[in-house]
Amino acid sequence: MRPSGRDLSELRPVSIETGVTKHAEGSCMIRMGDTHVLCTATIEDRVPPFIKGSGLGWVTAEYGMLPRATNTRMRREAAAGKQGGRTVEIQRLIGRSLRAGVDRVALGERQITVDCDVIQADGGTRCASITGGWVALRLAVNKLMKVGDVLSDPLIDPVAAVSCGIYAGQPVLDLDYPEDSEAGVDGNFILTGSGRLIEVQMSAEGSTFSRDQMNHLMDLAEKGVNELVAAQKAACA
Amino acid sequence: MRPSGRDLSELRPVSIETGVTKHAEGSCMIRMGDTHVLCTATIEDRVPPFIKGSGLGWVTAEYGMLPRATNTRMRREAAAGKQGGRTVEIQRLIGRSLRAGVDRVALGERQITVDCDVIQADGGTRCASITGGWVALRLAVNKLMKVGDVLSDPLIDPVAAVSCGIYAGQPVLDLDYPEDSEAGVDGNFILTGSGRLIEVQMSAEGSTFSRDQMNHLMDLAEKGVNELVAAQKAACA
Amino acid sequence: MRPSGRDLSELRPVSIETGVTKHAEGSCMIRMGDTHVLCTATIEDRVPPFIKGSGLGWVTAEYGMLPRATNTRMRREAAAGKQGGRTVEIQRLIGRSLRAGVDRVALGERQITVDCDVIQADGGTRCASITGGWVALRLAVNKLMKVGDVLSDPLIDPVAAVSCGIYAGQPVLDLDYPEDSEAGVDGNFILTGSGRLIEVQMSAEGSTFSRDQMNHLMDLAEKGVNELVAAQKAACA
Amino acid sequence: MRPSGRDLSELRPVSIETGVTKHAEGSCMIRMGDTHVLCTATIEDRVPPFIKGSGLGWVTAEYGMLPRATNTRMRREAAAGKQGGRTVEIQRLIGRSLRAGVDRVALGERQITVDCDVIQADGGTRCASITGGWVALRLAVNKLMKVGDVLSDPLIDPVAAVSCGIYAGQPVLDLDYPEDSEAGVDGNFILTGSGRLIEVQMSAEGSTFSRDQMNHLMDLAEKGVNELVAAQKAACA
Amino acid sequence: MRPSGRDLSELRPVSIETGVTKHAEGSCMIRMGDTHVLCTATIEDRVPPFIKGSGLGWVTAEYGMLPRATNTRMRREAAAGKQGGRTVEIQRLIGRSLRAGVDRVALGERQITVDCDVIQADGGTRCASITGGWVALRLAVNKLMKVGDVLSDPLIDPVAAVSCGIYAGQPVLDLDYPEDSEAGVDGNFILTGSGRLIEVQMSAEGSTFSRDQMNHLMDLAEKGVNELVAAQKAACA
Amino acid sequence: MRPSGRDLSELRPVSIETGVTKHAEGSCMIRMGDTHVLCTATIEDRVPPFIKGSGLGWVTAEYGMLPRATNTRMRREAAAGKQGGRTVEIQRLIGRSLRAGVDRVALGERQITVDCDVIQADGGTRCASITGGWVALRLAVNKLMKVGDVLSDPLIDPVAAVSCGIYAGQPVLDLDYPEDSEAGVDGNFILTGSGRLIEVQMSAEGSTFSRDQMNHLMDLAEKGVNELVAAQKAACA
Repeated sequence: MRPSGRDLSELRPVSIETGVTKHAEGSCMIRMGDTHVLCTATIEDRVPPFIKGSGLGWVTAEYGMLPRATNTRMRREAAAGKQGGRTVEIQRLIGRSLRAGVDRVALGERQITVDCDVIQADGGTRCASITGGWVALRLAVNKLMKVGDVLSDPLIDPVAAVSCGIYAGQPVLDLDYPEDSEAGVDGNFILTGSGRLIEVQMSAEGSTFSRDQMNHLMDLAEKGVNELVAAQKAACA
Repeated sequence: MRPSGRDLSELRPVSIETGVTKHAEGSCMIRMGDTHVLCTATIEDRVPPFIKGSGLGWVTAEYGMLPRATNTRMRREAAAGKQGGRTVEIQRLIGRSLRAGVDRVALGERQITVDCDVIQADGGTRCASITGGWVALRLAVNKLMKVGDVLSDPLIDPVAAVSCGIYAGQPVLDLDYPEDSEAGVDGNFILTGSGRLIEVQMSAEGSTFSRDQMNHLMDLAEKGVNELVAAQKAACA
Repeated sequence: MRPSGRDLSELRPVSIETGVTKHAEGSCMIRMGDTHVLCTATIEDRVPPFIKGSGLGWVTAEYGMLPRATNTRMRREAAAGKQGGRTVEIQRLIGRSLRAGVDRVALGERQITVDCDVIQADGGTRCASITGGWVALRLAVNKLMKVGDVLSDPLIDPVAAVSCGIYAGQPVLDLDYPEDSEAGVDGNFILTGSGRLIEVQMSAEGSTFSRDQMNHLMDLAEKGVNELVAAQKAACA
Repeated sequence: MRPSGRDLSELRPVSIETGVTKHAEGSCMIRMGDTHVLCTATIEDRVPPFIKGSGLGWVTAEYGMLPRATNTRMRREAAAGKQGGRTVEIQRLIGRSLRAGVDRVALGERQITVDCDVIQADGGTRCASITGGWVALRLAVNKLMKVGDVLSDPLIDPVAAVSCGIYAGQPVLDLDYPEDSEAGVDGNFILTGSGRLIEVQMSAEGSTFSRDQMNHLMDLAEKGVNELVAAQKAACA
Repeated sequence: MRPSGRDLSELRPVSIETGVTKHAEGSCMIRMGDTHVLCTATIEDRVPPFIKGSGLGWVTAEYGMLPRATNTRMRREAAAGKQGGRTVEIQRLIGRSLRAGVDRVALGERQITVDCDVIQADGGTRCASITGGWVALRLAVNKLMKVGDVLSDPLIDPVAAVSCGIYAGQPVLDLDYPEDSEAGVDGNFILTGSGRLIEVQMSAEGSTFSRDQMNHLMDLAEKGVNELVAAQKAACA
Repeated sequence: MRPSGRDLSELRPVSIETGVTKHAEGSCMIRMGDTHVLCTATIEDRVPPFIKGSGLGWVTAEYGMLPRATNTRMRREAAAGKQGGRTVEIQRLIGRSLRAGVDRVALGERQITVDCDVIQADGGTRCASITGGWVALRLAVNKLMKVGDVLSDPLIDPVAAVSCGIYAGQPVLDLDYPEDSEAGVDGNFILTGSGRLIEVQMSAEGSTFSRDQMNHLMDLAEKGVNELVAAQKAACA
């Protein structure tokens, strides 16, 4: 029934390749089917003004999409002179989600910026950015711990994300672009490795949904995130 | 236990005053406690390019906050030269939510813009904007129907919104600013008058939450929206 | 002869309601007929760089208009990405005018920002902003004096403004929008309570005027400002 | 008493050199003492959208200042990414003033843009721009009439401008920069060759003025404009 | 003598991998040592206004760099709100260079946009963009020819580019970042497969050079471009 | 054969008038035929952050064009809200070229900004800006040396620039606008008084060129720069 032939509760093939760029302190290319996102983590010794001197660390994120990551070419945001509303909304979500899994005291007064750049898009880029972004963050933090700049692990629980939605009347896991563009309800679920919720967003596009459907989507999300956290662990091993 | 002395499941006092500006086709001032939002609806005969000639209507929203709506003065967005990420995110949410209750065929090829301007802020401005924005939309549509420009009612179900969150470890309904700034979990729930879900957003600020807590917040939201829909009906009567 | 039926030298009904927002140090809603402007005054302990360390205070103003304050919806300046030339010109005028009535030594090294936001427009918004802005400033300064932060009153003379113009060949006081859009000559007069001039602007729109007409407009302005100063005093009492 | 040794009612030396650039339809360099402004007039066959098809013409102006026209270098507005409030205010004034002397029916549906670029500044640049701008406009219109594109002269009356102010307690004509930066009251007076008023702006900088002083400044302005109009005529002969 | 141990006239290892993204009409990842650029070509049926209706085609380019393509993270241009001067200069160069090898009549009235996004930077990104950009262009044009939209080949001669410079007093071919940051003279040479020159830029950084040195650099460039054109041909075979 | 009747290797008439503005530390108006550029040099005691405390000086440049410097009026960059790519590219070139002739140790920790504003354009404005800009720089440095702020001359060699190109199949020196707009190849050559090269840029517009042609253009450039350096010396004497 799904365009890809997947089962209702089946993720796309996931691969997380680490160490893909020589400059970043942590990096990976995450591929969820045809959605490919390059995630890099940059460590800097400065923090935003509002926490200067607090001893606390900060994790933030930026998101971008190459102009021809999509089926038709999109205008380059740098040429347009500003980041669109969708970009800003997504990068705020990524940063907020990653911070939920960070002990900012243990991190110490430094900032890690996670850049998520979509190389190829086929739906679910914000979720892939969070899942891959956490891996880049993990690798950067490993480096800090190895040299002794950070003593106890500030990453208290892995963070991963998956989309679910109602496609052709059925709750499905991990929507690809053909599903996403048709889905009546579309949600993003961000959870930790131990099953705690960080962020839940469900949204009807020109329709509505019931509380039962909401619970069904939550069940799918829990299954999907479990599998993604396993992939994160394998990649970082 | 709540700073305001309210019960855990108690809304702030709600008032919706209609007809507050002489120019707009529909308008109201919604007050949820100390949060006051002026909502106006403007009817225009043009639609965005992507639906031109489709016969479908469009509902969109813009959101703003007066510089001294808040406790300390905020920089005016027009002076800063752009709308902040938060503003863009909120106005996209308002537009999306209102459209979920609209039969765009019945509306016909015209656009209604709902402006929500926060005159005084004390938490929950985006939810008040949706609840009040729907009233302004209702009044504008009434005008279209009265003169016969629209024949069957395009507003299929009222739309209202409320925030819930976990404050001091307890799920509470309709957070005011003192609660909002302390809450570990914060959610916005947008429902229709008949209890269908349009949008659910729950977000942990530097913490996480369980699925049980999520369900508890949903219960509170359903109760709150029921009361708000009653207030909308009374205001439009 | 006037669309509103007013005498040539008659102001619109004036009301000044104070204390309309709980956050600002001073606030009022001024209504001159159907022109409604919300004025708030914000006290801050910092001053602009060019007077830092001088011991002098500063008063500045910002001006805005809600998108549907007017008969047809105007584009939101924050969405357009900049303040229009008219906005900048008006807010410079408001700030300059208010400063003319301020003893900046007595105020001490602090800044008061007066925000004037037009809720509903029917002509004369810049003059209403100055008259109402002075009331917000007065109330904020009262607060500083009450707590002893300011010892001698820095407001040496009230400041009020009114428009006059030549409508249908006749000099008239306090133009409303139907008059303003037809007037061949249009002027703004800013005076103090003791009758001193702060700013005089007279401008012909596609026509010219004589020095006699100029003097006639000045006479009307003096009468109008006297009445406005009385309304300011009553509001602040 | 004046830094320049001029009499109270004495203009600076005025020179208006025409035909200074080969591309523009009309051009002049106006020099009022050390204030030098290059004025060019450009004729285009298009008009702004709001008068398209009306048969009426349009005259507009733009104003700029070279970065080192002033004593200390100012930031280039193109580099800053926007025109400052002062620039916008001045160019609106120039356009409005020039239009007051134009019969827009006689001009026909075309636009003339007058660019005023300050090469060297020593006070009074906006007035010099208007006086010189009118000469550029006159020369461009002459060209239209010569080739028969315009049949009856659309320039009904010359337009010129001068500043007056109260310097060291005395009303003086045509302030230069040392006077302008000290003057308590500062005014710009825009008149026609036949003595009609187009625009009067008087403004106190941190002080106030009386109606008597206002009349005295008006007298000086009438004298100054008479002399400037004579210089315009000589230049265009 | 060179940090990389290469001979003075030795290119870095070159690889050109084609078909790297599923959406673009033509794409490749070019790697010149540690400089990696993703090049995509997008075909659109519209052309810029200035050639509309001329029957001629257009080739243009845009250039970007991921924030962590470099050793320290650079600010994202979309977040800064504009493309820097360097970016604009480079993308104009890429577009101009590629157009020099295109028969715009044969291409027909369509536009091909070549996006060059630097994934990892180690010097010479603009030259790699041109060499790789030509491959993406070649592949896109192949598609047009295959389906018969274009009948005779519009790519008259391959285009490739290489940098040369004077490092440690010696002319060297294909500078990497350690060399580039130290080089006293730095040049970019854009040639066709048949050895014709398209663009030559040589620039001294805080020094000067002789005409003999210039000729030496030209010799190196001719050798380097020959090898790059061979790599392009192999990649497109 | 040339539209102007000049010989293939003949410059346009060159004049360099110094001291043309009273405020700048150094200034000249350079005229190369109908191309007129006003160059001013401003000395400031601050340097850019990246050399603060280094003891080194800095020379930078900005470039602008009056809207009606050209045959048809161009949009004012300040009104457009940004400097175009061409402007940025040119001003970077001017700054880089002038710095190549400066001993930054001898200059000491100060900045000289050279503004080049095109009053009238007829081709070759960037080259005229460099040649005239150097004169303004020379005069400003003379002032520093006269008062003893700088002890040994930081200007080690004059800097001048000229364009050459292939017009109607023939290499020609110093292209004017009619030639420039037709030329198949166009180059800018920046040399020192002693014949060293600073920057060479040759670019084919929709065509290509041979190495022999390149050498021919270099020969012409050397001849032209020799004559320009003589004119600079005469102007500064």
